[in-house]
Amino acid sequence: MSGRRKMDTFLAIASIRVVRKYTGDPIPDDVLRRLLEAGRATGSAQNRQSWRFYVVRQREVLDQLAETISSPENLHGAQLAIALVMTAPRAFDAGRAAQNIMLAAWAEGIGSCPNRARKHDDAKRILDLEDDYELSTIISLGYPDEPLRPKSRDPEESLRRIDRKPLDELTHWID
Amino acid sequence: MSGRRKMDTFLAIASIRVVRKYTGDPIPDDVLRRLLEAGRATGSAQNRQSWRFYVVRQREVLDQLAETISSPENLHGAQLAIALVMTAPRAFDAGRAAQNIMLAAWAEGIGSCPNRARKHDDAKRILDLEDDYELSTIISLGYPDEPLRPKSRDPEESLRRIDRKPLDELTHWID
Repeated sequence: MSGRRKMDTFLAIASIRVVRKYTGDPIPDDVLRRLLEAGRATGSAQNRQSWRFYVVRQREVLDQLAETISSPENLHGAQLAIALVMTAPRAFDAGRAAQNIMLAAWAEGIGSCPNRARKHDDAKRILDLEDDYELSTIISLGYPDEPLRPKSRDPEESLRRIDRKPLDELTHWID
Repeated sequence: MSGRRKMDTFLAIASIRVVRKYTGDPIPDDVLRRLLEAGRATGSAQNRQSWRFYVVRQREVLDQLAETISSPENLHGAQLAIALVMTAPRAFDAGRAAQNIMLAAWAEGIGSCPNRARKHDDAKRILDLEDDYELSTIISLGYPDEPLRPKSRDPEESLRRIDRKPLDELTHWID
């Protein structure tokens, strides 16, 4: 057991960044279990839970999957990957589960990147998926080899530095 | 300003429940702003940010929208709704943004429910959306009129009581 690191929810949401470079430090089993629990806990339409979590730690398989995505180095350098597989085409629910997993990881100090398999059929073959399953995303994971953890505990500071459209441009008010 | 309530990220993920009954307490503006910031902060494919947040507080419009979803009472009783509108069909990204908004709400003590507009065209007309926009979900929001806040600060206890498939059934290991 490695103990659980905590982070305030809004700080995690505001400060999370995509991490593509990882140290060689392994992810402890109890931490990995919590990331999977975060995926499992996700709400879905009619509570259908159409997801399966393929945990890939075998180096050879990570390297094979790397050739199916647009940034192979994300998987070559990852400690592990969670391939989010859908038994039905429910992309909205998949996005919710992926977000839960990545936030839970960030809160524990682990960086992640969602990678779409451009060579979808190749990736399905490598994972030995059933024909009617869909590979939603391959989340690469590892401890960040970048100084990306929030420097401040202030989410407002993170929000000021984020590369996003301003709120005014995104929001419409029906009052 | 109402002050920000904090909750540990993993606890929020493990303990969040769908809330369909709300008290009449209004959601303060600064709290609402943080929910929108949570949506804005969400990562998306190629950072496209294809979302717009339609904040509906006008009672007449909430009641009109209620007739487009399968559980009208969710919107009749809500203090407000955030309609998540996509300028491009990116359901995975929409799911990520919705999850961020609902987790940020839960962390502040606010309950939510994502409602799909079954009468999609009617809802688009009520919101005065452009033709090529897509209404992803209508998130109803309010303070819970149910004892649904986590009784324990222990996420593991929440995970034991959750109505979900067991992790063993969902997880495949490639070691």
